[in-house]
Amino acid sequence: MKINLNADLGESFGAWKMGDDAGLLQLVRTANIACGFHAGDPLVMRQTVRTALAAGVSLGAHPSYPDLAGFGRRAMAMAPAELEAAVLYQLGALAGIAQAEGGRLTHVKPHGALNNQACEDAALADVVARTVKAFDRELILLAPALSELVAAGDRAGLRVAAEVFADRAYTDAATLVPRHQPGAVLHDDDAVVAHVLRMLDAGGIVAASGKVLKTTMHSICVHGDTPGAVANARRLRDTLGGRGWELVTLPQALG
Amino acid sequence: MKINLNADLGESFGAWKMGDDAGLLQLVRTANIACGFHAGDPLVMRQTVRTALAAGVSLGAHPSYPDLAGFGRRAMAMAPAELEAAVLYQLGALAGIAQAEGGRLTHVKPHGALNNQACEDAALADVVARTVKAFDRELILLAPALSELVAAGDRAGLRVAAEVFADRAYTDAATLVPRHQPGAVLHDDDAVVAHVLRMLDAGGIVAASGKVLKTTMHSICVHGDTPGAVANARRLRDTLGGRGWELVTLPQALG
Amino acid sequence: MKINLNADLGESFGAWKMGDDAGLLQLVRTANIACGFHAGDPLVMRQTVRTALAAGVSLGAHPSYPDLAGFGRRAMAMAPAELEAAVLYQLGALAGIAQAEGGRLTHVKPHGALNNQACEDAALADVVARTVKAFDRELILLAPALSELVAAGDRAGLRVAAEVFADRAYTDAATLVPRHQPGAVLHDDDAVVAHVLRMLDAGGIVAASGKVLKTTMHSICVHGDTPGAVANARRLRDTLGGRGWELVTLPQALG
Amino acid sequence: MKINLNADLGESFGAWKMGDDAGLLQLVRTANIACGFHAGDPLVMRQTVRTALAAGVSLGAHPSYPDLAGFGRRAMAMAPAELEAAVLYQLGALAGIAQAEGGRLTHVKPHGALNNQACEDAALADVVARTVKAFDRELILLAPALSELVAAGDRAGLRVAAEVFADRAYTDAATLVPRHQPGAVLHDDDAVVAHVLRMLDAGGIVAASGKVLKTTMHSICVHGDTPGAVANARRLRDTLGGRGWELVTLPQALG
Repeated sequence: MKINLNADLGESFGAWKMGDDAGLLQLVRTANIACGFHAGDPLVMRQTVRTALAAGVSLGAHPSYPDLAGFGRRAMAMAPAELEAAVLYQLGALAGIAQAEGGRLTHVKPHGALNNQACEDAALADVVARTVKAFDRELILLAPALSELVAAGDRAGLRVAAEVFADRAYTDAATLVPRHQPGAVLHDDDAVVAHVLRMLDAGGIVAASGKVLKTTMHSICVHGDTPGAVANARRLRDTLGGRGWELVTLPQALG
Repeated sequence: MKINLNADLGESFGAWKMGDDAGLLQLVRTANIACGFHAGDPLVMRQTVRTALAAGVSLGAHPSYPDLAGFGRRAMAMAPAELEAAVLYQLGALAGIAQAEGGRLTHVKPHGALNNQACEDAALADVVARTVKAFDRELILLAPALSELVAAGDRAGLRVAAEVFADRAYTDAATLVPRHQPGAVLHDDDAVVAHVLRMLDAGGIVAASGKVLKTTMHSICVHGDTPGAVANARRLRDTLGGRGWELVTLPQALG
Repeated sequence: MKINLNADLGESFGAWKMGDDAGLLQLVRTANIACGFHAGDPLVMRQTVRTALAAGVSLGAHPSYPDLAGFGRRAMAMAPAELEAAVLYQLGALAGIAQAEGGRLTHVKPHGALNNQACEDAALADVVARTVKAFDRELILLAPALSELVAAGDRAGLRVAAEVFADRAYTDAATLVPRHQPGAVLHDDDAVVAHVLRMLDAGGIVAASGKVLKTTMHSICVHGDTPGAVANARRLRDTLGGRGWELVTLPQALG
Repeated sequence: MKINLNADLGESFGAWKMGDDAGLLQLVRTANIACGFHAGDPLVMRQTVRTALAAGVSLGAHPSYPDLAGFGRRAMAMAPAELEAAVLYQLGALAGIAQAEGGRLTHVKPHGALNNQACEDAALADVVARTVKAFDRELILLAPALSELVAAGDRAGLRVAAEVFADRAYTDAATLVPRHQPGAVLHDDDAVVAHVLRMLDAGGIVAASGKVLKTTMHSICVHGDTPGAVANARRLRDTLGGRGWELVTLPQALG
């Protein structure tokens, strides 16, 4: 009974702050760190790596389309060779900063529109997976459970960790209910905890319809960018601990 | 009698081309590759790394202030921590791309205004040197002969390679004659070759006044961004070869 | 018998040069000037405005998605409000520079992927048209003949100028034959001139199949970014002049 | 007894929020709006213009060096022609957005390092002043009292409004006490109000030493980026109103 909690960190930029990184680092075991293309200037990246290493969490890169103004949430039609190079650039930049701080990356989790598209589009997912492999074949690909990105990681021979979202409702196709639909995002502490426990008990994603989609789940993604999010994550962590789940880093969750 | 020739490469960006990289790679033994902050988008970087590796030259990072519109030629007042992180980011990005291509970096040479300022300002030079060391203490710092940057590299315990410029006149203080002064840039083939031979024979920089400033010289920097530059560099290379100089990579030049 | 020739100008950026603006300005009567989002830093914009005003051509803005590295050629999923603001920003920036130089804008022509998408997508075309109108209802919208962008301009009550491309083959649906297909781009002088004359004679687009798609044509777009392009455009201009076509600015072409 | 209160607004960017614009717009009569180079993407700019117009305040551009990551606070060595074009670009961009919203700019206030340098460096101040004049000779230049920028505006024949800072201590040379020195920034409500009243009563800047530097003062700059800042500004406004000062827009303050 091992599970990982992961969160997106280091999403400040220059004079602008985002998220409660310090609060989340007390709770999660894995940090996905922005690499400068949607958030995270070099200094923010270095400070995030330092605090993440001090907290003992496993580090991953959170690469994005190049789109600061859109926070990486806007789809972009990049050619495969452009995307490969852009992702390599980001992985290297964060790895270089980690190296200077005496740490190393153990995983990659794409951000925003890149992640969303790679979950649906097998060809794009293959581009991401082969880029991770070209950079370092030991890296774990952290991808949404039952997505094309998981399948692409498997095809590439990468270690793949499957994640579910603590605060998001799922469709019967294992995709996220779009944000504009009612009930898409769970705001209530009790609802979030119940949702996660239901999935862990069922051994798969539990869709909004109640349908169970069996899948391995190595990690649960929590958020820290809204008021109450950190308290919410703490509640989840404590409940999981109380139920006998050991909270481990991502490499430990993969065994 | 070993000497290195180096050139700045990979300074295209997106749809814009600059320099004759293919031509220079037939001549030089070392490439300083732009890292995206003054030139070189990720795809250009990857293609440059590939062609440089295929040509058998040693690879270095050419980090800059973040200033695409100014091509890194405008001084910026970055705080030391900002500059350190920005340089680490660039070193890591290029190293990551090199790693994916089966290569590795062997040196760092700052670009443009960052290089110019670090040649004059010991504190800034120390920031650069300690950043290189924090990233990888095996990297060579390629710095203008007799500059503060050479001194900072020595203080940091780095391996330091001293370079002279084939086509630039020097002051008695071992700095470059400013471009706006007559004779600052040597355009004529004969003049360039004669200037380099004079320095190699004298064992130091020969200033425009004729004064000799004794210094070790490991590398000669040639340029490829003007018409005739590549022909000029070929002439220099052939002449050096004819005089018994072995043209080697930067690590080989350091022994 | 009046017709306009237009060209995209000011697509240099910082240290990088693109196109033969001086050559084209001797031939065309209208300049579409990059606004900094795909090309054209502020200094390039100002210099382009100056030389265009000196050449007596009519000035237009050539706004783009924000994508320097992709030269505005990559589709981006911008929300309508984001796109409106981004286009307004670019129109204003160029208009401000023109104002400082004693000139004024008379038209807008979207660039690259934004233009391509607005030719196919009526909703996106409406966003572009209403943005132009919000900025200045006197501006002409320069759009590919028979495109959704022409229709959107009409719906918005704007003055619309329809253009055809001198060097591109058309499908029976009045769209450009994709570049990767054989014959998509006409490189030969004779072929370009014959293509344009055939369309002017037929009073509409002549598709590669020979099919004629009747349409008003106010302007012909020529390019200057390839070797020979300027010579090609000169040949076209001279031939049109010899056939009795008066070459006029865009406002004059609209009557 | 008329005085203006101004504040820097629209300094959010993309997903990142900064400052309490809504709160400040209830208090100040003039908004200096970021133009995209240090903060303020186009959508933020448009929304800021809308809310500022709705609040009835006078609008000004707040142009900066191009430096998002540094928030425009880092000095950059731009050539005069580069700086002129960059400032024109920003003035035009904001003016275009204002025009689409049915408003217009009435002043310009440089931001951050550009402002600081223009206060000390007469040549740089002249570049700023002549750029404002080239764009629109009716615009007011809002500049720190007794600075080189005021003098440059006078030389250029611009209307110049002199401002003092509500929460900053002054040296005997009318410059701001550097932030790292004790007492440089006034945080206490009472101290801020007392400081402003002392200056208005004295008819000039009152330095930390107590020395009075006589100067016209048209506007008081207040900040909204720290907790308590808005409450602080409200306190100041109310006190001024209670003392018989009429709070007016910037054009009204100049008479």
